[in-house]
Amino acid sequence: MRGRSPSSDARVWNQRPERATDMRKSLIQDKAAITGIGQTEFSQGLNRSVMDMAAEAIFKAIDDAGLKPEDIDGMSRYHMQDEWENWIHATVGLGEITYYADQPHGGGSYAAVIISAAMGVATGLCNHVIAFRSRARGRKSVFGPGGDQGGRPWEKVEARIPGTMQYFRPFGLMSPVQEMAAIAQRYMHDYGITEEHFSNVAIAIRNHAVRNPLSVMGRRGPISMHEHHESRMIADPIRLLDCCIETDGAVAVVVSSVEAARSLRQPLAVIHTMAQHTQPAHYHLTEWWRFNRDEMALELGRRLFERSEFKPDDIDAVMLYDHFTPMVLLALEDLGFCGRGEGGAFSENGALEGPGGRLPVNTHGGQLSEAFIHGFNNVPEAVRQIRGTSTTQVPGARAVAVSAASSDPTGAFILRGD
Amino acid sequence: MRGRSPSSDARVWNQRPERATDMRKSLIQDKAAITGIGQTEFSQGLNRSVMDMAAEAIFKAIDDAGLKPEDIDGMSRYHMQDEWENWIHATVGLGEITYYADQPHGGGSYAAVIISAAMGVATGLCNHVIAFRSRARGRKSVFGPGGDQGGRPWEKVEARIPGTMQYFRPFGLMSPVQEMAAIAQRYMHDYGITEEHFSNVAIAIRNHAVRNPLSVMGRRGPISMHEHHESRMIADPIRLLDCCIETDGAVAVVVSSVEAARSLRQPLAVIHTMAQHTQPAHYHLTEWWRFNRDEMALELGRRLFERSEFKPDDIDAVMLYDHFTPMVLLALEDLGFCGRGEGGAFSENGALEGPGGRLPVNTHGGQLSEAFIHGFNNVPEAVRQIRGTSTTQVPGARAVAVSAASSDPTGAFILRGD
Repeated sequence: MRGRSPSSDARVWNQRPERATDMRKSLIQDKAAITGIGQTEFSQGLNRSVMDMAAEAIFKAIDDAGLKPEDIDGMSRYHMQDEWENWIHATVGLGEITYYADQPHGGGSYAAVIISAAMGVATGLCNHVIAFRSRARGRKSVFGPGGDQGGRPWEKVEARIPGTMQYFRPFGLMSPVQEMAAIAQRYMHDYGITEEHFSNVAIAIRNHAVRNPLSVMGRRGPISMHEHHESRMIADPIRLLDCCIETDGAVAVVVSSVEAARSLRQPLAVIHTMAQHTQPAHYHLTEWWRFNRDEMALELGRRLFERSEFKPDDIDAVMLYDHFTPMVLLALEDLGFCGRGEGGAFSENGALEGPGGRLPVNTHGGQLSEAFIHGFNNVPEAVRQIRGTSTTQVPGARAVAVSAASSDPTGAFILRGD
Repeated sequence: MRGRSPSSDARVWNQRPERATDMRKSLIQDKAAITGIGQTEFSQGLNRSVMDMAAEAIFKAIDDAGLKPEDIDGMSRYHMQDEWENWIHATVGLGEITYYADQPHGGGSYAAVIISAAMGVATGLCNHVIAFRSRARGRKSVFGPGGDQGGRPWEKVEARIPGTMQYFRPFGLMSPVQEMAAIAQRYMHDYGITEEHFSNVAIAIRNHAVRNPLSVMGRRGPISMHEHHESRMIADPIRLLDCCIETDGAVAVVVSSVEAARSLRQPLAVIHTMAQHTQPAHYHLTEWWRFNRDEMALELGRRLFERSEFKPDDIDAVMLYDHFTPMVLLALEDLGFCGRGEGGAFSENGALEGPGGRLPVNTHGGQLSEAFIHGFNNVPEAVRQIRGTSTTQVPGARAVAVSAASSDPTGAFILRGD
């Protein structure tokens, strides 16, 4: 790999005093489990409100755990979810809510949503937390911005561009795909990553979707490298088949203490270790390469594994935020499954494809091909792998890593069996 | 008190199965402390950006703790704070951030912000959390909506009223004062509360502000009951002097583990017990009286004290969310300092005024008379009472209760000395 000279800001960062590695086991490690999972149908147009879908997923998750709505006394949400705790409480009919928190940063949220839920039950502030994400964003949805509020990104820019967006919106960074394209261009330039590598991600994840009857894109069948390369360029080097879809749907999970989980009906899926991370950035997407990513981004994986009984090689499957294919390769590097710049080579020879690959990624079809529930559909798939019920089951899976978007302030956790 | 027939929904709620009181001591109880406090000047027009003020308060809080910015590895924020973790990180120059969370519900947020910070350090996910709130809302501020984005509430209503607001905005509930007025009317009707009782709150808290040279309203001197009753009616029964002010300013605190706090420079201010609460409501402000508040709202105080070594009578001072004076009386009831409907009688004879009153409330001047930092300025005042440095010091204060807005999903904690 070619390497780069860090900027002066990055030099300051890189010269900061060495901090002692904190090897303390967290008090919440192995103390909480995901005891219930639920989801709606996924589609490009369900004609349902976000609240209606959220309620269905929540009821199903509670039922899957063998609990009743009044057993739920905690809530953990995406910051971006407009349906407040008290609305959900009123709609679904929960117990007295004694703990709640939100997690910011969109696609960077979902591991932290699970970590926060684990904190609530592990510290004794509540017994059973409901966590969910519901979105009406499909192209045919009348409720989301894909419906009657739709439009091209440049049509949606405010007359007065707020905050730090004034520094990049006028220069063409209008939507995430353009920001990620800038990151991907640099990634290709610095490390020799190619669009073949990107297609490895898209093909593996689509193959998983084909086996998942609940996925949106699976019914369209597998894709070839040729189809990937021929698909429409959206923001160079990101093509249509490198992009996640936009859909309607909701996903919910129940998080309980491990003691409570042992008396519930499902096999144990224990939240083993967890880590959160943010780099200093006024706008995270455009400042991706400003710092030495070897030092910065690898912190997440280091902390995730340093407290774990598993090493990266022990992980049976991984659920990553596949908003765009290049970010999956970078996430593999950030978590320490391979070295910086080695994500492309790592993806070769069907390595990301289950059940036989080296490290099956997003065995449900992920955001690229199952549904785009802002990453939260990655969580129940990790649970299914641990339960042994995935449609692309890794035989005997014992440990699954789950990471939110590494393009944002983010988090990760490892789910393990009993 | 006259009592009321609960609605059918409330009857369902009230007939729910009895839940066992959870007397478990939380794992985070007595495990975290507030080790640093910092704030900017408070004013009705500082001509500074929200980020600029946040940075000043954060630097001062870190310095007050005897720490350096790079020691900070956690962040806890109001959901409503637009300055993201990574922006703060980039602006202030913190350490590697390994834990962060947001807390929703505006004035209901700030106790939960402290609880969340305590969870981060107590569970070992980080060592020192910075928590802050910064607002540019003063009438003379060029940065906030009081400046060039100002206007009357009815001028700010969107052409298409979103969500549940469509059910009450058209009927005149445009801003919090009108919603709180509806609550206060019912409170007066059901329990014989009078505007004398409201003025008891305004007078006591203004007297505290007069002794606090950093308060915005203290320089205007004390107010009399006559002045209160003669002040302009804003939304019947809430008068001008029943309302909090709008200001510019920022407040930050550092939360550390108790072990770390013992080696830092300030007297220990330990986060002793904590509770969060939300009732089921599609819009919390308009559904206040829908449920039997004896059963609902008292849960917060019950949980706060059931795990505590202190009883309500042991509390030396209390910091409440004084957005409007009637809500202070209701908060005293919700926390269990007096019975339902007894807040008015409780406020008589200078009971709320320090240092000699029965239960001094908001000894800095609160949101009514110090500044409106969305309640977060109540937190450093609780710390000052424990340190013995308040300008209305309660001699030998050992335990201070802090509660966020009971009009919203909310939280509370007790701060104690060593």
